[in-house]
Amino acid sequence: MKKANTKAHAAILVIGDEILSGRTQDVNVSFLSKWLNDLGVKVTEVRIIEDKEESIISCINEIKEKFKYIFTTGGIGPTHDDITSKSISKAFNVKYCYHPEAFEILSNYYEKGKFNIGRKKMAMTPKNASLIYNPSSAAPGFFIKNVYCLPGVPSILKSMLGGLNNKIIGGKKIISKTLSLRTVESEISIDLEKVQNRFRKIEIGSYPFFKQGKLGVSLVLRSDKLKLIERCKKEIIAFVKRKKIKIIINE
Amino acid sequence: MKKANTKAHAAILVIGDEILSGRTQDVNVSFLSKWLNDLGVKVTEVRIIEDKEESIISCINEIKEKFKYIFTTGGIGPTHDDITSKSISKAFNVKYCYHPEAFEILSNYYEKGKFNIGRKKMAMTPKNASLIYNPSSAAPGFFIKNVYCLPGVPSILKSMLGGLNNKIIGGKKIISKTLSLRTVESEISIDLEKVQNRFRKIEIGSYPFFKQGKLGVSLVLRSDKLKLIERCKKEIIAFVKRKKIKIIINE
Repeated sequence: MKKANTKAHAAILVIGDEILSGRTQDVNVSFLSKWLNDLGVKVTEVRIIEDKEESIISCINEIKEKFKYIFTTGGIGPTHDDITSKSISKAFNVKYCYHPEAFEILSNYYEKGKFNIGRKKMAMTPKNASLIYNPSSAAPGFFIKNVYCLPGVPSILKSMLGGLNNKIIGGKKIISKTLSLRTVESEISIDLEKVQNRFRKIEIGSYPFFKQGKLGVSLVLRSDKLKLIERCKKEIIAFVKRKKIKIIINE
Repeated sequence: MKKANTKAHAAILVIGDEILSGRTQDVNVSFLSKWLNDLGVKVTEVRIIEDKEESIISCINEIKEKFKYIFTTGGIGPTHDDITSKSISKAFNVKYCYHPEAFEILSNYYEKGKFNIGRKKMAMTPKNASLIYNPSSAAPGFFIKNVYCLPGVPSILKSMLGGLNNKIIGGKKIISKTLSLRTVESEISIDLEKVQNRFRKIEIGSYPFFKQGKLGVSLVLRSDKLKLIERCKKEIIAFVKRKKIKIIINE
């Protein structure tokens, strides 16, 4: 088993059959990861699971102690397949019930007589959960302990993150620098590994790409230490120049 | 714990810090899911994990018995951060060594004197693994038992799937029909739930969308039984018409 490491690490749990089936392309993971990174929180695991109560409960139980923060996306709307709130309540063994403030927000939002059962369902959360306000369409998300539940619709999710900025306490911000080269990975792998071995505290990722019919490799250096990144990059540039490889991007 | 269900269910394991950091938008999950669905295999879980040996090993050990097929993407290139083959070898407790056929393929592919150590690394697999041929750039993927290891670069991954079509044995193909409506979820949630309760064998997913400034909801009906889907859709259309909701797509 992986050891618990709750040091400003986060997991994202995407709850959605539509993502698993390939029908919908997830875009929330990338957005949430960047937002969290800016707050000094590193996403170290993502899971995409089915809209099934037992899947949600077992997954939350398995990971809730391992991460400082867990963000779920999807399943907090008004339809029968929206079962996140109920499942999270069960995972934490608390009552699933109307949240008084959420109920008030939604009853004010809908015209008189239009606050139907489906809409009322969006006011239900685990007992004593805190709300995450929704400036787009009123229906709030919520958090209970370290689990933050957000909607699946990307534009609504994005609009709700502002309200969380001062609730997420991160570590040092991870800085990332990129060096893109006109080469292929197998031309540089040996020299690159030598640099990686000298800079153990820098994560060097190597990502091949094809752009406008041309091959290239992006090297991404990540660490919370800017000076160390700069020194490491210098050593890479030294062997790159020696090999007469063109640098496309250095930023 | 979730019970084992290996009945033509698959998991996808994305190995990639670049996806977790938000730098790169994954597109392989959606592509693989659709391809598997056409073969009658349902993807029921996806995990995105770090390029770390212990993460890969613990994840493979945790899920290898739960799914009929596991597909990994990423980490089979020539650089120091490509550790999938080595980690899978350890997870299955077999030797990590040169695959004679892969070695031959790659030594023929590269010009004389250009088959360097980094390139030779791409010929290493778990002992006795079977190859997945690569018509794009020679370096093969491999499979061992139920774990199929593919590259992360989408165009290369896609080019390699053809060779696997007759190796993946699925169940009945899941059929999916969509009904898109000019409404919001909370207008239809109660009627929709009633239909879902009458058609337990159909998975009805409800997905709100915004397109060209207008709100809508797509209902996706999934099952291996076409006639049942059609009957279920008829009942949805009945209440939709009663509520005077416009049908945008019916396919």
